[in-house]
Amino acid sequence: MITSANLYDYFENDLSEIKNIITLNLKNRDSSTSTLLNSLAATEGKMIRAIFTLIGGSFGEIDKSKLYNIAAGIEILHLATLVHDDIIDDSGLRRGKETINITHGAKTALFTGDYLFAQAFILFSESASRESFYNISKTIKFICQSEINQFLSKYSLNSTILDYFRRINGKCASLFSLSLSLGALDGHADDKIINTLKRIGYYVGTAFQLIDDILDITTPNTVLGKPSGNDLFEGIYTFPLLFEIKNKNVKLLSALESNDLSTVSDILKTSDGIKTARKLAEKYTLKALSLIDTLPNSHEKTILKSIIDKLLKREY
Amino acid sequence: MITSANLYDYFENDLSEIKNIITLNLKNRDSSTSTLLNSLAATEGKMIRAIFTLIGGSFGEIDKSKLYNIAAGIEILHLATLVHDDIIDDSGLRRGKETINITHGAKTALFTGDYLFAQAFILFSESASRESFYNISKTIKFICQSEINQFLSKYSLNSTILDYFRRINGKCASLFSLSLSLGALDGHADDKIINTLKRIGYYVGTAFQLIDDILDITTPNTVLGKPSGNDLFEGIYTFPLLFEIKNKNVKLLSALESNDLSTVSDILKTSDGIKTARKLAEKYTLKALSLIDTLPNSHEKTILKSIIDKLLKREY
Repeated sequence: MITSANLYDYFENDLSEIKNIITLNLKNRDSSTSTLLNSLAATEGKMIRAIFTLIGGSFGEIDKSKLYNIAAGIEILHLATLVHDDIIDDSGLRRGKETINITHGAKTALFTGDYLFAQAFILFSESASRESFYNISKTIKFICQSEINQFLSKYSLNSTILDYFRRINGKCASLFSLSLSLGALDGHADDKIINTLKRIGYYVGTAFQLIDDILDITTPNTVLGKPSGNDLFEGIYTFPLLFEIKNKNVKLLSALESNDLSTVSDILKTSDGIKTARKLAEKYTLKALSLIDTLPNSHEKTILKSIIDKLLKREY
Repeated sequence: MITSANLYDYFENDLSEIKNIITLNLKNRDSSTSTLLNSLAATEGKMIRAIFTLIGGSFGEIDKSKLYNIAAGIEILHLATLVHDDIIDDSGLRRGKETINITHGAKTALFTGDYLFAQAFILFSESASRESFYNISKTIKFICQSEINQFLSKYSLNSTILDYFRRINGKCASLFSLSLSLGALDGHADDKIINTLKRIGYYVGTAFQLIDDILDITTPNTVLGKPSGNDLFEGIYTFPLLFEIKNKNVKLLSALESNDLSTVSDILKTSDGIKTARKLAEKYTLKALSLIDTLPNSHEKTILKSIIDKLLKREY
């Protein structure tokens, strides 16, 4: 049985190498930039995308140092998107700490994000293949387009559930899919395995984002590292709300119309929208798990199943 | 004698191919994104960086279609930095048109810039070598760092002339240097030629930015495609001002201290700072020209000299 502790144990050495690469690459001669970047590196998350890169790499034959660089690049890339997201969402807190947006202003956050993008690309140019590079660039473009769409469709009652799935594909699933497949691609794994890993990434990312959006509604403020109910107040309409709108929940629609968002939020907490979102997250997780079963047996495969199991069951 | 008209004539076919690639790559299935990107493509500038890429490529043996993709990528990359710059500088006008910052807000501009970065990288991943890719990423990192520094040192009387030159190296010269050398690098030109092209780019870029900063002070509002005196009012202290501060121009310092910026601006217009900046721009131009003389003779070499001559003599 794999627990959270021994899951990280297995990758402990690899992750520590990857963290070193990240720290080294966020070092900067210029002291003001350096302080900024260090504060970012210190708030590192669960490094789930780096772990996915490691797992993907295990299905091919890839030089460890290249795989570490790619994994570090993916984590830095993810950090870049977070820094820019925080500007878009006016977020004050991220991973329990004040965002650069708050401490240094949106303008510094903008170029810090760009700087991180460039730094990630430096790592990729050292270690990723041309095809990986192409996939990475395509994914970033897709992420940006989803963010533009999310922003342009804020407060729109015309957003559909299909729009939502397109958006979360871009926002989350695409980077999961990329992380899980890059190492296998550059390790010259079988095409079928690479494609399976891509699809697993999409399913897991979709489930992950659905759960994120559920938790944003159901979790008390104090538990998350960021304010809850944020999406609704920011005009970002996620699955549970769109589901209730589609099903013409009269109470909810009237509260929404009169801009009584705390009532909307209360209705959502116990809504069918939440229940359906949970079911969908479970459905996507099961799809991922059954695809994982088709992969060649390995310890990494077992770990991947265990991670996905934990992702589905997380409560914050 | 090469005039402005026949300068563009020589590259007419190449530039039209590059413009097609840009238009094609800014097309987008999503209609709102597409409108945004088309409005950007329509405000295309002088494409000086694309011309530099073409000239650099002429010193090596590189497939035309690859060179066009790289040139298009460089122009899209430049567009991305402009879109983000406009957010930082709160600019309302660019190339005579309203910025995305104004028409769609800073947040949309942010992700539009990111989208353009990603699109440029897609082009590079299709056509640039790993080494070029590395150089491109390094350059972007340098540009971002210079922008962060420029922003953090706004209104600072402690900025030195050395800081200024570091900043314009990053802001402008580095991308000129990159454009001029990429084609030669991927065309496997002699290392000495590649390095000479890099240095020429730095000198030209430095002269170009010095002149830009002079024109920002001396040109009447109506002539530029953007407001004049912008830098001073935005707290960006350029060479002429820093020169006067260093030389303790009492009148100017007192006007600056009492925040009487129109007096500062009037003093600057006829200051030694402007004259010295002009001399420096000339010095850097001459350095570039004498380096160009060391390159193998070709029509492109003659054109490069003519472009640089025009850049120095421009009045807006």
